[in-house]
Amino acid sequence: MPDAPARGFSEAEFAARTQQAQILMAEQGLSGLLLMSEPEVRYFSGFHTLFWQSPTRPWFLFIPSAGKPVAVIPEIGADLMRHTWVDDIRTWGAPAPDDDGLSLLTDLLQPLAVRGDTIGLMKGHETSLRMPLGDYERLMNGLSGVKVADATGLIRSLRMLKSKAEIAKISHICAIGTHVFSEVPNMAHAGQPFEDLFRCFRREALLQGADDVPYLVGGAEQGGYHDVISPPTKRPLATGDIFMLDTGATWDGYFCDFDRNFAVGQADDVSRRAYDVLWRATQTGIEAVRPGMTCRDLFQTMQDVIAPMDNRGGNVGRLGHGLGMQLTEWPSLAAFDDTIIQENMVLTLEPSLSYGAGRVMVHEENIVVETNGARLLRG
Amino acid sequence: MPDAPARGFSEAEFAARTQQAQILMAEQGLSGLLLMSEPEVRYFSGFHTLFWQSPTRPWFLFIPSAGKPVAVIPEIGADLMRHTWVDDIRTWGAPAPDDDGLSLLTDLLQPLAVRGDTIGLMKGHETSLRMPLGDYERLMNGLSGVKVADATGLIRSLRMLKSKAEIAKISHICAIGTHVFSEVPNMAHAGQPFEDLFRCFRREALLQGADDVPYLVGGAEQGGYHDVISPPTKRPLATGDIFMLDTGATWDGYFCDFDRNFAVGQADDVSRRAYDVLWRATQTGIEAVRPGMTCRDLFQTMQDVIAPMDNRGGNVGRLGHGLGMQLTEWPSLAAFDDTIIQENMVLTLEPSLSYGAGRVMVHEENIVVETNGARLLRG
Repeated sequence: MPDAPARGFSEAEFAARTQQAQILMAEQGLSGLLLMSEPEVRYFSGFHTLFWQSPTRPWFLFIPSAGKPVAVIPEIGADLMRHTWVDDIRTWGAPAPDDDGLSLLTDLLQPLAVRGDTIGLMKGHETSLRMPLGDYERLMNGLSGVKVADATGLIRSLRMLKSKAEIAKISHICAIGTHVFSEVPNMAHAGQPFEDLFRCFRREALLQGADDVPYLVGGAEQGGYHDVISPPTKRPLATGDIFMLDTGATWDGYFCDFDRNFAVGQADDVSRRAYDVLWRATQTGIEAVRPGMTCRDLFQTMQDVIAPMDNRGGNVGRLGHGLGMQLTEWPSLAAFDDTIIQENMVLTLEPSLSYGAGRVMVHEENIVVETNGARLLRG
Repeated sequence: MPDAPARGFSEAEFAARTQQAQILMAEQGLSGLLLMSEPEVRYFSGFHTLFWQSPTRPWFLFIPSAGKPVAVIPEIGADLMRHTWVDDIRTWGAPAPDDDGLSLLTDLLQPLAVRGDTIGLMKGHETSLRMPLGDYERLMNGLSGVKVADATGLIRSLRMLKSKAEIAKISHICAIGTHVFSEVPNMAHAGQPFEDLFRCFRREALLQGADDVPYLVGGAEQGGYHDVISPPTKRPLATGDIFMLDTGATWDGYFCDFDRNFAVGQADDVSRRAYDVLWRATQTGIEAVRPGMTCRDLFQTMQDVIAPMDNRGGNVGRLGHGLGMQLTEWPSLAAFDDTIIQENMVLTLEPSLSYGAGRVMVHEENIVVETNGARLLRG
């Protein structure tokens, strides 16, 4: 395993991200961005904690038109936030159901409301509102005059392009993921409860240096699996099973995302054919990648390989996606997505097809887009 | 380790949960509940997948005034949903940024809008809107006539009281967690990078039968730690360090949540005193628990033990919380929470205090409330 890169990012990187956002904000007439989701707060501040798994407390980061971000957060996070580059940290004793940050946010945003300014909020595709809807409505009712615009496109345009340091982190976890998958033939055997294989896989990933394996799903059935999002059962693996593991392992808050297929003892002919099609679709996709093409183009290139075996498009809805702080990010490799593929995007190519009586197969590789095409992230 | 209970729940349990919700809906004048968050969709349907970690696709479950829930979900989840007790499963090919379920939801809710009915949505404390805010606004604009009420209290009143099967799952993972913590003195040693201890801890938890350890944070510093939500660093443990591990491990989708403190080689006197205070606060809390008291009462009982050493209330904001499908759930053991403690609630008692120059210490136990008081969940 190669040495791990440094954890975290330089202050210069956070400053550059913030300045880039502020340039776009000025272009789009936004006086501020109000962010509240884990990847966005982390992207601009470096605030990195698993504590977001507790749904109890909201967290806010405000990007003003100039200067550093302002954190409006529960007191329990103050110490950790003080270790980031953020200076202006405003806290309250959360949880406080009657006022979970609303007074502090109102103080911060009132001057913008008075001026009739517009603030950006992430309201678009692949986002959620990570605060109580009732509190959001109360906040906005108290800020009459402020306008709200959707900043999803702005954030997306920044986050889709990875920095060198981000790519190093993703490369590292991809190398770990690849090594763990190479051990699967030594871990899995007929008679093994599928859930035990999951435990072995997670333990091996930790041993190889992953921080965690937040995502591990799969399917195992005779002659092919039906479902690609299930947790494992106790059912023992049997000769003739086709099984798939889909993992999102993490290192320093960045994901790899691989689907791999295995046959126990032997594979039936139709599953072999499906596997061959997916392999060729992946290979064709990797070779086709060039900065300047659209996601739709790349989708179509892979779909053309798949169509002779399955022209219904499967049930996954796309043939790959962005990858980074989240297991799945913009863009989508799909007919609906005309995003231009650019250098330093990290993407997964995840062709899928349906075959036989409700069988499905998926395969997934991770790439970074470089000047001349794709570089496979596999260690 | 005791044998694991059965995975999943009986169809009768889902039916009972749904009927109980419908009784409360009738009392509160709600014609339906529109749910979209992981625990709620799982609570009423049994739909259990890690796929929620992908933020790309929204998922909806509608509870009508009578009859089974209706699922409105991405096609990729159809196979898994068909294995639940839900019959009416409406799917679309997601992701579809222009129409990610909105048409299907509109079809479903239009009759209620025409009648001017009220639907319940979770808008309150400790909730998020797990769909794009822009899509929510579009949906509601297209349903003129429908009224929206906050159903947080309704859902909370159901989910706070655990069934026998839920308690069995939580007990099981608490037993696993307890065993793993008992191994920490064998795992941890001076000179060990703190992040290596985290890897050992996670691997041990998997070996002992946990499905996963989604949450593991902690602190380690000479004479006491400053922060309770951080990921680990490479800093090696040293004699005189006080360290704390806070884990949320899971089994079949239910959490344990323990904070445990350790000293490397020796503990300083002030940290020993802080530990003694937290131990006594926990013990006093456990002994005080009775159905019929309020969360505020239980909070105060523990706070009275802590106050002689720290009367500022710490920075955690409460001294415990509900536990179940989420790492932290309602209620809060806090001065603001007058929820009545009832039989079959599962709670954590998590006293904390600040001491010295910005040191903090937390300790946490998990209990189930029974007729005569607390039963400690520790295997």
